Amino acid sequence: MAILKGNAIVGQSGGPTSAINATLSGVIRGASFSENISKLYGMKNGIEGFLGDEIIDLSYLFDDEDKLSLLESTPASALGSCRKKLPNLDTPSDVYSKIFDLFKKYDIRYFFYIGGNDSMDTVYKLSEYSNHIDYEIRIIGVPKTIDNDLPITDHTPGFGSAAKFIATAISEIATDCSVYTMNAVTIVEMMGRDAGWLTCAAALAKEYNGLGADLIYLPECPFYDNEFISALERELEKHPNVVVAVSEGIRYENGNYVGASNQSGMVDVFGHKYLAGTAKNLEALVKREIGCKVRSVELNLLQRCSSHILSNTDIEESVKIGASAVKLAESGKSGEMLIFVRKNTECYEVEISSVPVSMVANKVKYVPQSFINDEKNNVTKACIEYMSPLVQGERQVKYENGIPVHIRLK
Amino acid sequence: MAILKGNAIVGQSGGPTSAINATLSGVIRGASFSENISKLYGMKNGIEGFLGDEIIDLSYLFDDEDKLSLLESTPASALGSCRKKLPNLDTPSDVYSKIFDLFKKYDIRYFFYIGGNDSMDTVYKLSEYSNHIDYEIRIIGVPKTIDNDLPITDHTPGFGSAAKFIATAISEIATDCSVYTMNAVTIVEMMGRDAGWLTCAAALAKEYNGLGADLIYLPECPFYDNEFISALERELEKHPNVVVAVSEGIRYENGNYVGASNQSGMVDVFGHKYLAGTAKNLEALVKREIGCKVRSVELNLLQRCSSHILSNTDIEESVKIGASAVKLAESGKSGEMLIFVRKNTECYEVEISSVPVSMVANKVKYVPQSFINDEKNNVTKACIEYMSPLVQGERQVKYENGIPVHIRLK
Repeated sequence: MAILKGNAIVGQSGGPTSAINATLSGVIRGASFSENISKLYGMKNGIEGFLGDEIIDLSYLFDDEDKLSLLESTPASALGSCRKKLPNLDTPSDVYSKIFDLFKKYDIRYFFYIGGNDSMDTVYKLSEYSNHIDYEIRIIGVPKTIDNDLPITDHTPGFGSAAKFIATAISEIATDCSVYTMNAVTIVEMMGRDAGWLTCAAALAKEYNGLGADLIYLPECPFYDNEFISALERELEKHPNVVVAVSEGIRYENGNYVGASNQSGMVDVFGHKYLAGTAKNLEALVKREIGCKVRSVELNLLQRCSSHILSNTDIEESVKIGASAVKLAESGKSGEMLIFVRKNTECYEVEISSVPVSMVANKVKYVPQSFINDEKNNVTKACIEYMSPLVQGERQVKYENGIPVHIRLK
Repeated sequence: MAILKGNAIVGQSGGPTSAINATLSGVIRGASFSENISKLYGMKNGIEGFLGDEIIDLSYLFDDEDKLSLLESTPASALGSCRKKLPNLDTPSDVYSKIFDLFKKYDIRYFFYIGGNDSMDTVYKLSEYSNHIDYEIRIIGVPKTIDNDLPITDHTPGFGSAAKFIATAISEIATDCSVYTMNAVTIVEMMGRDAGWLTCAAALAKEYNGLGADLIYLPECPFYDNEFISALERELEKHPNVVVAVSEGIRYENGNYVGASNQSGMVDVFGHKYLAGTAKNLEALVKREIGCKVRSVELNLLQRCSSHILSNTDIEESVKIGASAVKLAESGKSGEMLIFVRKNTECYEVEISSVPVSMVANKVKYVPQSFINDEKNNVTKACIEYMSPLVQGERQVKYENGIPVHIRLK
């Protein structure tokens, strides 16, 4: 092991999750045990804040079990976030020299970046840049995303808690909808532009609670209005209250988003289209074609921030992967992202490993066809078996004055 | 006390809540202790199902603590619900004679109806009718509604759990929104056609978590676009992420709903307009007038069914009020609705009492002006102090396979 002594810095980037602070807690716990790391800084608002020299010293948390525990059930990015994309390495820019000047200023030798696909692009570029300059630093990516769409890793930290919230919410919504006797369709929209993982989680409700999503539509398969209406009519013959789970990103065969006509046409800095009206558009379709009572529900932001209901499996793994990031860096690795490897599928067991971040950055892992039924309107048993272990266990959350307590790092 | 022996029946009506089954459990518990009640029936889908002779025997639950406890954390109406309005008493109709024939058929001497404003109309009409025929029966209304808009009672069973979910969700959403540095407005829409109680609950988040709703708009005050935009601009000068809580039913000075243009124009059987687009319309307004990032979130059905997060105060009171309904009927009363009376405001304490249902049926309790600030864009300390005790305490919910367990009564 190549010993490298100095300070460390950790940042959070991209959309918040309910578990991204558990991973931050894991990095803090890992750093507190390290003999090589003196101080652990946190960058405010990711690489964007760091460029503005906005950092805070996190070392005060090293042995504060109460605060770390609170951090693990505080939603969103406690350090703040950003969506900054670093310029291509062959584009003339002083961004990289500015960043490395700051590394030198604070003697930062360990850099941990917790984020999703886009954030791994930042990790990749910084580690590539570091290979061509004379300053030793280890740059590590730690995955997070409720979307579960990072390749190679079995799943992503944050997905399990989002999936648990979704399965619970769908179970409650389906129970709520079951009280009346007249035909009614309820369409619930989940996040997921390209990958339908979150929407798959809706299947857990019907599997384990008896009431849940009767039909599930994912962006991995083209959507056909007529097949959807036929499937609905078949379901309505069986029972009066039909619940449908759809991903925001479902598309027609021609590639147009189902939610397109209700959209603003805006794109984010990574060029992703902003979607919001998928369930609303389907509501209008059902009203027109079937004419029964129909409503749409967007689970919206709560999918990624409802930290009052957390998968304990997810939170424990999220802490572990953060602590493992520190060990990986200490072992001499750089330019790598931590991953989960499922060792045993009969009795769930994961190991933490790592891969070069270039294998992950800007790539998307889709729901495999083996997880989708032949009619393309539900998931298979294999999908349920994959997801089920990830939502197990409940995290006890601290309440004061009737609402959960959150911590602020400021 | 006029002793009356026979069977009892209980029904649930109107929109479901997270606590309506706790009240059902209370009625079951009350009946199980009664020396006058032999069997307790449940009507399926309220008075509508009863008219179709659809009843089940609930006596099997009398001593099953495990099942009753599960029932108390099962969302929605476990007996099913309806929105049937009984005809006026002076209208020729055979509905009443049909209902009373069924009462005689099953020797039903006690009738308990758990519901909101509209359901109390049913209780009122049945008890009026019973006064003019030769069949002794005691007809009691038990309040429930997340809307908290029933008069006389200090608050309604179900409101506390809905308020706890809303305060928690707003706290989490505001925390989620706080991670970026650019100006953004998030508009969260709560249920509430005429009364803004649920929206008031958003105030608990900022009061106790530091992050929550910065501006709160209720149907009790006319809404002005220009005042809203000015208030937003003032908030945005203080901090970049502004969260707004609005009731679905806010209206302009001319009486038009803010959410009107996005609506279908449908009305329910009680003539209530269907609203759904208030936050969406305000999102468009902010985009046009301020131009910053803006999004809308509807908390939608989860407000009334998210029984994975329950106010223990609400659930305990909901059970008690159900059990008290049985005692009230046994004492000889009929045509009354149970109410909560707040005895002590310094140290929260409630007593259960009752009033003639005619004082409640078809009436609405609005948020008083003393609970609303001078600018009409937030609530007062008095409102916080009124709500706070209602959301206290957490109910432990049973999980299996990672999601909450619900019970089905069939």
